[in-house]
Amino acid sequence: MFSVTVRDHVMIAHSFKGEVFGPAQRLHGATYVVDVEFKRPALDADGIVVDIGRAGETLHRVLSDLNFRNLDEVPEFAGRNTTTEFLAQVVFNRLVAAIRGGELGPGAREVEQIRVTLHESHVASATFEGRAGVAS
Amino acid sequence: MFSVTVRDHVMIAHSFKGEVFGPAQRLHGATYVVDVEFKRPALDADGIVVDIGRAGETLHRVLSDLNFRNLDEVPEFAGRNTTTEFLAQVVFNRLVAAIRGGELGPGAREVEQIRVTLHESHVASATFEGRAGVAS
Amino acid sequence: MFSVTVRDHVMIAHSFKGEVFGPAQRLHGATYVVDVEFKRPALDADGIVVDIGRAGETLHRVLSDLNFRNLDEVPEFAGRNTTTEFLAQVVFNRLVAAIRGGELGPGAREVEQIRVTLHESHVASATFEGRAGVAS
Amino acid sequence: MFSVTVRDHVMIAHSFKGEVFGPAQRLHGATYVVDVEFKRPALDADGIVVDIGRAGETLHRVLSDLNFRNLDEVPEFAGRNTTTEFLAQVVFNRLVAAIRGGELGPGAREVEQIRVTLHESHVASATFEGRAGVAS
Amino acid sequence: MFSVTVRDHVMIAHSFKGEVFGPAQRLHGATYVVDVEFKRPALDADGIVVDIGRAGETLHRVLSDLNFRNLDEVPEFAGRNTTTEFLAQVVFNRLVAAIRGGELGPGAREVEQIRVTLHESHVASATFEGRAGVAS
Amino acid sequence: MFSVTVRDHVMIAHSFKGEVFGPAQRLHGATYVVDVEFKRPALDADGIVVDIGRAGETLHRVLSDLNFRNLDEVPEFAGRNTTTEFLAQVVFNRLVAAIRGGELGPGAREVEQIRVTLHESHVASATFEGRAGVAS
Repeated sequence: MFSVTVRDHVMIAHSFKGEVFGPAQRLHGATYVVDVEFKRPALDADGIVVDIGRAGETLHRVLSDLNFRNLDEVPEFAGRNTTTEFLAQVVFNRLVAAIRGGELGPGAREVEQIRVTLHESHVASATFEGRAGVAS
Repeated sequence: MFSVTVRDHVMIAHSFKGEVFGPAQRLHGATYVVDVEFKRPALDADGIVVDIGRAGETLHRVLSDLNFRNLDEVPEFAGRNTTTEFLAQVVFNRLVAAIRGGELGPGAREVEQIRVTLHESHVASATFEGRAGVAS
Repeated sequence: MFSVTVRDHVMIAHSFKGEVFGPAQRLHGATYVVDVEFKRPALDADGIVVDIGRAGETLHRVLSDLNFRNLDEVPEFAGRNTTTEFLAQVVFNRLVAAIRGGELGPGAREVEQIRVTLHESHVASATFEGRAGVAS
Repeated sequence: MFSVTVRDHVMIAHSFKGEVFGPAQRLHGATYVVDVEFKRPALDADGIVVDIGRAGETLHRVLSDLNFRNLDEVPEFAGRNTTTEFLAQVVFNRLVAAIRGGELGPGAREVEQIRVTLHESHVASATFEGRAGVAS
Repeated sequence: MFSVTVRDHVMIAHSFKGEVFGPAQRLHGATYVVDVEFKRPALDADGIVVDIGRAGETLHRVLSDLNFRNLDEVPEFAGRNTTTEFLAQVVFNRLVAAIRGGELGPGAREVEQIRVTLHESHVASATFEGRAGVAS
Repeated sequence: MFSVTVRDHVMIAHSFKGEVFGPAQRLHGATYVVDVEFKRPALDADGIVVDIGRAGETLHRVLSDLNFRNLDEVPEFAGRNTTTEFLAQVVFNRLVAAIRGGELGPGAREVEQIRVTLHESHVASATFEGRAGVAS
């Protein structure tokens, strides 16, 4: 299996509901350094998994929609805790939609699996990995 | 699949038996920077894999039992080479026991897989990954 | 010159005033991974710059006062932009006060210089360095 | 599953053919920081996955064959784009051959899976992972 | 003293003249991960050292002029070894010129010192640090 | 000012004397990832600070003398706590002696300042920086 990984970051504010979160129930924020790994079993005719330039631009566009926002005020997330693991899946879903929409080019439809990791500090991160399910 | 990863470290002394180890047969030591990834297929009602605070505290407690020790004198390891890969499994086993004992809370029983990586330098690390086997 | 450096982190929300900040004028947040370097010209009788355990605890205590907060609501920062470089100086000032108050032990009064770096992402950081001015 | 990972690096020049590469169609170069993970289900009698010293030496030998070269002039790569993902597979193939040739010792034949990652910058990397297929 | 640091990267080909360089006399290449630290004694009215967005854009523009090039063919470098330390000074000089030309805004003229580090691998880097000399 | 930095590592066992060290009074160990920065005001005729290959080999040789040892049994360190900051100075002294002895070549005598940092974990390090004092 081949893969290509690109990195970018996003800075947001939010708060959590639930005693398990302790002081993180207060409005606070985070920088998430985001790694996205695109996986496919064979390279295309150019010898690549995806156009790495386009992959980086698409990740940047997806993160820009969240960047410098208070996630508590984003209607789509109402009633949900925007935990690191939850946001990893949000980024995954938006990347799958971008591939479906052709934003990464026709070759990207061969991507089988995507792994999204959000590093919230030097000691903690969360990941969502799933099937891209575009070609099938 | 979702996961959460926490990091801590431990500093130990030990020696190895066997020609393959060369100068590492002498008493020496290591800092292991330890990453533990907890995996489960779905988030709980709070939107998390495990309580990341509790996960960090449990890892810290597990490593404290080894910290600042000469592993050559730990009865449990008698007759074994406490290699990086062996110690990765030791940490794994103690984390599974901690989940079974409820130390990470009831939700942690849904963790299916745990991946433990010990970084012994900037150029070498070892990993043990296995099924947590608690819920089943 | 000798020095010892310890690392911890803090997660906050805030917003900035001024056109130069663009979208960062909106309420957002950041994880700051914080490195503090304590410098002195000679080691003490134990062979150390400062008690590294106490240094880490003091940094943790200083950051805990800011952790999981919306800095826009902290009276001390009213009318100021809590930029990364500004916060580096805030951490510096509080560490100097801690040394003056004896929180790092009597030996820490020999620290001459402190350098505080806040990493706000994998591509940006800010630093404040100044004289501790305790022994003089 | 156990694994051991070693790191080294290689510095090469090359150019790519195809519009998708934009300015990378020009002769340029890269440092690849290379991580190789060797995986096997059980440790050997010494308590190791592979002799980590030999693993590092073998990786260094494999990379030396490419180091300080213009890959456009290497006959083996004629007509191919030596992309990061392609080179990850080249390193994989050469490591499998080294294990087959006994370069990592007889125990290394139990390695089932090898994962090769080439980091081309702080924001991009590529990986090839496959079965070593030596013992079977 | 306050400072702000930004990071970017550049990928080039080149060769060196001189026996000291051994196999690096052959045409090869490198990724340089570049850190630039801008230093000034006091913050401006907005609470910043420089506009970090503009600093990043200027660094990117300076590196783009070198990116995906064979430095052996750049007339400006004829007869010079484009070593990592030499290139650190090239980036420094171009950043000073950019500040003089107003590219980082009027506030950047207060920058007193600039430190440029090029990381050529996970085990080697080179730095040039000098006075910006713009305000004086 | 120009500089070049090289990285290597060393794994040792030791214990400390003094209540300030708490559990580190027990025999334990550490991996030190070691960065050495060589500084000089001008480049030589080849365009370098020092021969980076030789610098790496010299650092490796200096660390090999300590590697895989119990520092409590090294006569030279009798009666001293081999703290991270103390060992940074030991490495510094041995590198200055190596330059004096010509091990880094004649050009290395122009090195004015050397900075040695030992990272003992992902959250702690110690540094010694001093004048090389060879050319004067």
